[in-house]
Amino acid sequence: MTDPVTYTLEPIGFVHSQLRRREDAPRQGNEDAPEAWLHLSIPFLPALKGLQTGAEIVVLTWLHLADRGSLEVHPRNDAHTPLTGVFATRSPDRPNPIGLHRVTVLEIDPGTGLRVQPLEAVDGTPILDIKPVWND
Amino acid sequence: MTDPVTYTLEPIGFVHSQLRRREDAPRQGNEDAPEAWLHLSIPFLPALKGLQTGAEIVVLTWLHLADRGSLEVHPRNDAHTPLTGVFATRSPDRPNPIGLHRVTVLEIDPGTGLRVQPLEAVDGTPILDIKPVWND
Repeated sequence: MTDPVTYTLEPIGFVHSQLRRREDAPRQGNEDAPEAWLHLSIPFLPALKGLQTGAEIVVLTWLHLADRGSLEVHPRNDAHTPLTGVFATRSPDRPNPIGLHRVTVLEIDPGTGLRVQPLEAVDGTPILDIKPVWND
Repeated sequence: MTDPVTYTLEPIGFVHSQLRRREDAPRQGNEDAPEAWLHLSIPFLPALKGLQTGAEIVVLTWLHLADRGSLEVHPRNDAHTPLTGVFATRSPDRPNPIGLHRVTVLEIDPGTGLRVQPLEAVDGTPILDIKPVWND
C-alpha cells in the first residue's frame, strides 16, 4: 500500500487580466482571450533569466474557482454533450485543478513579470509555473 | 497584499515504469523514453470515461525527486551551458515541480488505468492530472 500523501504548492505570482469572472472567460485561450500580465512575487523573478520576448511558453495556473469533486462533466458545459470523464476533457473542474495555457511572451519587465497573450484565466488566478513549450 | 496561501495536491495515481532512477531517465519524452503504465487510484477511474486508445494526452506529474529551491540551472545539466532561470528551461528543479508529458494512449484498462508512450518519468512518480492535448 502507498501511504496517502499530499503535495503543497506555493503560487509564484498572480494573473492580472481584464477578465473578472469565470463566466466571462473563453473556454480556451485560442477563443479570443485577451492579453494579461503575469505578476511574479519578487523572490521568483530571477527564475525568468534567459526568457525572451516572442517566446512560446506554457503557463501553469491553479484554477481556484474549480470544483475538485467533479469526475464527470458535460463538455463545454452543454447539457446536450455526453457525460464525459474529466480526464478526457479540458474542464477546469477536476481533482487537481491545474490549468495549462500556451501563450506568447509580449513583454518582459524584470521587476514585475511578463505580458502574455492569449490568456483565458481570470484576474487573480494563482500562477504555479512557467515552462518553454516542447521541443517538437 | 495577498495573503500567503498554499494549495494541496492529491495524487490520482502513480507511474509504473522500467525507469528506476532519475539519472536513467531521458531528459525529454521524445528521447527514447519507454512506455509506462499510469495506475490510477480506484476512486479516480470514472474520470477516464470517454478517453480513447490512440488519443494524444498531456500527463501532469509531481516530480518528487526535484530540488524546489533551484531558481537558476545549467540547461541539460551541462556546466558549459549558461546559467538560466528555471522558467526558461524544462528542468525538473523548480519551485513547483510539476512535470508535463505529452504521450499517446496505447491501451486502456478501466480497472487499472492507461498504458502510454513515451514517458520519461521514473517508476513511482505521482500522477496529478490527465488532459487531452490542445485543440490546435
